[in-house]
Amino acid sequence: MAPSASGPRPPTITDVARAAGVSRTTVSHALNGLGKVDPRTRERIRQVATELGYRPNLRAQRLRRGQAKAIALASSMPFAVAGGPSRLGFYMEVAAAAAESALLHDYALVLVPPVQSGSALYSVDIDGAIVVEPDIEDAAAAQLRERGLPYVALGRPVSPEEDTPYVDLRGRLVADLLLEHLREQGAVRPALMVGAGSRHSSVDAVAAYERRAEEHGWTPVVARVPESGGEQAGYECCAALLAEHPGIDAVCALVDAFAVGAVRAVRDSGRAVPDDVMVVTRYDGLRARTCEPPLTAVDLHLDRAASDAVELLLGRLRGDTAPSVAVSPEPRVIARASSLRTARA
Amino acid sequence: MAPSASGPRPPTITDVARAAGVSRTTVSHALNGLGKVDPRTRERIRQVATELGYRPNLRAQRLRRGQAKAIALASSMPFAVAGGPSRLGFYMEVAAAAAESALLHDYALVLVPPVQSGSALYSVDIDGAIVVEPDIEDAAAAQLRERGLPYVALGRPVSPEEDTPYVDLRGRLVADLLLEHLREQGAVRPALMVGAGSRHSSVDAVAAYERRAEEHGWTPVVARVPESGGEQAGYECCAALLAEHPGIDAVCALVDAFAVGAVRAVRDSGRAVPDDVMVVTRYDGLRARTCEPPLTAVDLHLDRAASDAVELLLGRLRGDTAPSVAVSPEPRVIARASSLRTARA
Repeated sequence: MAPSASGPRPPTITDVARAAGVSRTTVSHALNGLGKVDPRTRERIRQVATELGYRPNLRAQRLRRGQAKAIALASSMPFAVAGGPSRLGFYMEVAAAAAESALLHDYALVLVPPVQSGSALYSVDIDGAIVVEPDIEDAAAAQLRERGLPYVALGRPVSPEEDTPYVDLRGRLVADLLLEHLREQGAVRPALMVGAGSRHSSVDAVAAYERRAEEHGWTPVVARVPESGGEQAGYECCAALLAEHPGIDAVCALVDAFAVGAVRAVRDSGRAVPDDVMVVTRYDGLRARTCEPPLTAVDLHLDRAASDAVELLLGRLRGDTAPSVAVSPEPRVIARASSLRTARA
Repeated sequence: MAPSASGPRPPTITDVARAAGVSRTTVSHALNGLGKVDPRTRERIRQVATELGYRPNLRAQRLRRGQAKAIALASSMPFAVAGGPSRLGFYMEVAAAAAESALLHDYALVLVPPVQSGSALYSVDIDGAIVVEPDIEDAAAAQLRERGLPYVALGRPVSPEEDTPYVDLRGRLVADLLLEHLREQGAVRPALMVGAGSRHSSVDAVAAYERRAEEHGWTPVVARVPESGGEQAGYECCAALLAEHPGIDAVCALVDAFAVGAVRAVRDSGRAVPDDVMVVTRYDGLRARTCEPPLTAVDLHLDRAASDAVELLLGRLRGDTAPSVAVSPEPRVIARASSLRTARA
């Protein structure tokens, strides 16, 4: 598919130089805005280049400059099993905002979702990457390190030796706000469901839950659900929790797919949401909003967080070496019917 | 940020050749699976390369091969004004599915949403692109042609001279199904609201509407709304339509943001949805599902369409030259409360 295969030889910088009556260096400087070139000469060279249909070889330029002008959005978290709009979760919302921020700096955003992320992260031409909520010994992060590529994390990295810059998604505060909301709505026996990985959101939520359980005298009930299991795993886990601990009156399911499964399990056990068991989740996406009843969730300010992650990464690409942290704005609980006992219409 | 700036010189192909006691060409052939290399020699070279931490220079490889192994998802359609999950519309749903399909072929997907798409499409290193619902004289398509890059369209291209391969999103059938649904629900004076551009979805919908209006004796009411106006433009347009044509009993608003605005305008005019005025839309995304009442929409099989677009493009990259068309599966109306008069619970 090289242009030369499908027509006459494309014009080269030599053709432009000859037609404009200047040196190749002058053409290069004129077209790249480098060195000193008389403005009228520059204009003439540009006209000649346009007339000849000359396009600089982008790849050769990048090879010289050592830049891809592209960054990747990587994640080791399993993509939602289902297709359709329900795939439009956390990762894609971050992608939309990050793409916009990157393009404002003339960087393209390359999607490296977890399907085959292994091989893709080895082969994609990028200058660096944002790793979404890295797990401990995160596969995506390891591949980037192996390629010598700089990266930043969206969400605090959990590996002890990790000193990469990151955007703090305030996992502990998020869990704390959800648990406090449940307590205000009357919960006295809330359970916690987190992903089985060790991402900051799970680790932070367990820490927040254990502290509150001690403080309020709750019997701690913490369940870890395989991340790739989706709604069905959330359903099964919640059904088992309700069978083993029939007194549970609230479920804080950090992953939205688990929360949707939990609502179904509560119903199938003959209980009502929220009257018998309240359900809340973290990410305020399509799943939370279209669940019946709609799920209480948290505004994580993902637009801002994604944009901060892009800025951190571009800073590193410009040579910032000190590790740094961008802290997201205060998260905010968005209370909905799944947990509103006292203030329902 | 080149690796050489932050540590010892990275190993080169010469280092690998010396350590393995073979020529540079043999190393290159062994690592790239080219030429004839004894399998045991190949294994030994790979081991030496791994031990030395040798990584081939991806950019140099690509320059030689003339491949970026990346494709872009381009669109000239304005991105949703609002941030947050409501930005997760048509474009991002296509992106999620296309990224997965592309990665299965070891291609990365580069997001080139309409923010500054002009400059980004000139500078991103890609082998080709998918243009989402190109307008007449589409800016993204023009930039790709200017760079000599192959592209395919998702949705039939409307420019008369255009002969690029495309995935047919069956715009006429989609509009026809929505209008037939409205008629079944009792509409006798439906109005049509489309984007002001000439994308196939608008052109096809107007054609379908005009034919049906003639067939059923409807007074044709067609409004064209600026694409970048979002919900507010839909609101204002619908309010004006209701003031001018008070007998309207249904609005088919092709763009989901317009439909959400239309629901608000119907209410503010003192009418009820769906009892006085039904509202339906095309794309079954977050907006349609979270609208109050939820909007009747169409399953466009976007997963399949995005995957087909990737296959068409990769076919062109492999050298397929005949224009070709992939036809999406039959679209299907998903009836919801915004237009269910006769079958409501």
